[in-house]
Amino acid sequence: MPHTLRGLYVIIDPAVAGKRDVLHVAREAIAGGAALLQWRDKTREKGTQLADVRALAEICRVAGVPLIVNDDVDLALAAEADGVHVGQQDLPVGVVRRLVPGGWIVGASTNNAGEARAAEADGADYVSVGNLFGTTSKDDTRPATLETLREVEAAVRVPVCAIGGIDETNIAGVVTAGADMAAVISAVMAADDPRAAAQRLAAAFG
Amino acid sequence: MPHTLRGLYVIIDPAVAGKRDVLHVAREAIAGGAALLQWRDKTREKGTQLADVRALAEICRVAGVPLIVNDDVDLALAAEADGVHVGQQDLPVGVVRRLVPGGWIVGASTNNAGEARAAEADGADYVSVGNLFGTTSKDDTRPATLETLREVEAAVRVPVCAIGGIDETNIAGVVTAGADMAAVISAVMAADDPRAAAQRLAAAFG
Repeated sequence: MPHTLRGLYVIIDPAVAGKRDVLHVAREAIAGGAALLQWRDKTREKGTQLADVRALAEICRVAGVPLIVNDDVDLALAAEADGVHVGQQDLPVGVVRRLVPGGWIVGASTNNAGEARAAEADGADYVSVGNLFGTTSKDDTRPATLETLREVEAAVRVPVCAIGGIDETNIAGVVTAGADMAAVISAVMAADDPRAAAQRLAAAFG
Repeated sequence: MPHTLRGLYVIIDPAVAGKRDVLHVAREAIAGGAALLQWRDKTREKGTQLADVRALAEICRVAGVPLIVNDDVDLALAAEADGVHVGQQDLPVGVVRRLVPGGWIVGASTNNAGEARAAEADGADYVSVGNLFGTTSKDDTRPATLETLREVEAAVRVPVCAIGGIDETNIAGVVTAGADMAAVISAVMAADDPRAAAQRLAAAFG
């Protein structure tokens, strides 16, 4: 059954987790209502990540929540994830589509309606739009606004994921603006209580 | 027809090439007698590398020289290379073997006979042994000696590739010690005349 691409999208980043157990935070995020998870580790070599990503894929499989791996298609395949998310500098969506099994989710970072249309035409299952509110992460550093988000929604048929500094103070605004998904990193990964934080954030989707 | 894993193995690294055209250096290396090429780019995102790796794969196909891609199995698949080389921190050989088409070359970096035996048991087609003579590259920084090289050759049936600071002053020694291949980086990439340098280096294999 295809996964529903709607709701809270929690990025699991060991660098943001710090000393926390990333798998524990991931379980708490799911318990709090995360609809999708993304694994992102820009620091460690892939062989060092593999055990964690495989464990996370199993957690996600049991919970019925799709796991998307950032950038590395080979790591995603090795861990038997459910999809891959690529940025504008990563392997192109059309190339990635041919490397992954049928039914996998392929998402693409975009910054404007033109990039979003191109990603959709290349076969993306969803597009993200950012950076909306600033973030400490190094990706998607080009700025975007709620107006950009609305323009992208008008430009593509696939679901749209808002990203960039989204937290409890601004998530209602992106949902009102029409985002199908909202990606959060530190709002869950660095929260005192990741489950409660995910619950409050997920509630924005009604 | 399977490729012969013997001779001069030239690593094409854009960071070492500097302002030179890496594809030109690669053609010169082949013209000089390189038996295998490896693409290695630890700096740029994979999407940015793809056009170069595809062009190099085509050059290698025409020349009948196998192209091995370092670390990134997804980039290797996308560029239709002939193989992948993985280090001890990259995806494991056994995992990589299941991700690539039959007939692909899978090589593994090792530092001693134990790692080499493990890589062979996991399905590696060759193992590299280094770092023999020091190198400015960041990989394979654990030291190894010609005695290590001989121990690895005695421990495995697959071809063995010497690596680490190999140049015209020491390549005869690694061939005498029994290396099936010798991997060079700056000895060709940074040479005044890459073709002539490759010719002199390849001559060590008789």
